Amino acid sequence: MTKEHQQSASELIEVANAMADAARAAILPYFRATGLGVENKLSDGFDPVTVADKAAERAMRDVLAELRPADGIFGEEYGQQEGSTGLTWVLDPIDGTRGFLAGTPTWGVLIALSDASGPIFGIIDQPYVSERFIGGLGRADWAGPHGGATLVTRTTKGLEDAILFTTFPEIGTPQERAGFERVAQDCKLVRYGMDCYAYALLAAGQIDLVIEAGLNAYDIQAPIAVIKAAGGIVTDWEGNPVHDGGRVVAAANSALHAAALERLNAGR
Amino acid sequence: MTKEHQQSASELIEVANAMADAARAAILPYFRATGLGVENKLSDGFDPVTVADKAAERAMRDVLAELRPADGIFGEEYGQQEGSTGLTWVLDPIDGTRGFLAGTPTWGVLIALSDASGPIFGIIDQPYVSERFIGGLGRADWAGPHGGATLVTRTTKGLEDAILFTTFPEIGTPQERAGFERVAQDCKLVRYGMDCYAYALLAAGQIDLVIEAGLNAYDIQAPIAVIKAAGGIVTDWEGNPVHDGGRVVAAANSALHAAALERLNAGR
Repeated sequence: MTKEHQQSASELIEVANAMADAARAAILPYFRATGLGVENKLSDGFDPVTVADKAAERAMRDVLAELRPADGIFGEEYGQQEGSTGLTWVLDPIDGTRGFLAGTPTWGVLIALSDASGPIFGIIDQPYVSERFIGGLGRADWAGPHGGATLVTRTTKGLEDAILFTTFPEIGTPQERAGFERVAQDCKLVRYGMDCYAYALLAAGQIDLVIEAGLNAYDIQAPIAVIKAAGGIVTDWEGNPVHDGGRVVAAANSALHAAALERLNAGR
Repeated sequence: MTKEHQQSASELIEVANAMADAARAAILPYFRATGLGVENKLSDGFDPVTVADKAAERAMRDVLAELRPADGIFGEEYGQQEGSTGLTWVLDPIDGTRGFLAGTPTWGVLIALSDASGPIFGIIDQPYVSERFIGGLGRADWAGPHGGATLVTRTTKGLEDAILFTTFPEIGTPQERAGFERVAQDCKLVRYGMDCYAYALLAAGQIDLVIEAGLNAYDIQAPIAVIKAAGGIVTDWEGNPVHDGGRVVAAANSALHAAALERLNAGR
């Protein structure tokens, strides 16, 4: 990196941290508060958007309006805003609204910075626990209430030693579920219900695999950047880039990634 | 309560808090540490006992040896120790060892105090998040990193508005799973993988139902005391006391409890 690029990276990371701080402040008053105003985005499903979700995205957009007004923005709640720098901030103010509504500290604020090639930097932030996972632009580290560490993924080689996370059985088609089950039956341990926190745990070297389906770009761009910076791999179920969303397999290393892809596609 | 009983209650609560503090200090150095020494208790299943589990129970027993040497103890790791006071401390140093091994802050330290009738006091403690839920002997409150509140369960009246938690699909027989599914399909939202934290969320008025199977006495006695103090109900799937363990339904109120029992037993 040239000195100019280093300065630029450091400025971008500072902006992202300011956005995450603003989102924390906007969200926390609403977490576990009674009488949340909940809208249903989809009449046929349970996809609540809380007051906190919108307040947090507005807070992050306010930071960008002040510090990076020429960058593009793509946010879950307020959509697309074109920029002129070639950089776009991809925002999910509360990833895991179901967990949020149930009071679990498994939801997170997702902030990604992308260029034409995809995400180059990401933050996964858990405001209630006060944990922040940062990857890209030369960073790969996390900090929490009892300290932090470098983000580095595990060296687990086989599925038989792997810990797998997913949001199944909540989402996915029966066919997708079957693919997931083929991986799951070969793994040491399968856990559910962690929302974006599972990707943070993978980057932090605590678990080995995350498999999901039906994701949007803003659900996965920050995890992609954080996990890649930690040494992991995130693709779709065919092994292709997945920053536009869809079916995701995130793995701690290439051996596990290959093994998971093989099982996912064994039913074809 | 007489003044003597109040003093006694206050002393017992102080002892319980000292035990929870000691368990926190014993466990936290091991949480998310690499190279945990893990034993398999059951050769046919995944039931790890970590160094932390044993260290925490020893730390709690040390507190009792000093402050309440005549009380009985029943702990997950070190078994039964008879007492002479009619009171027994029922301990699960790490409830949710699978979550612990995966790095999720969903496990907890469970401390119950029981007399011949069952649990009269309980603590659910989450050391990493620094949250403590206390119920019984006149207490019903919780404290966390951003404050706390009185424990009071929800007034949700029908399953169609209820948030249900479980450890299924991990545990239970196919028949038990079918009973659970009958309740789940009538609920607004079903979430997985929260270990004992789900009972704490129920007591704190965040969720409505927890349904599980295959529990031990030390898994459920503290949740029973905490939820009862908050206004909720915990029984087995037939509506009987469940402090000896087994199949558990915990509900925010009697209407939800009755509705859940009806669905659980509808297949008979």
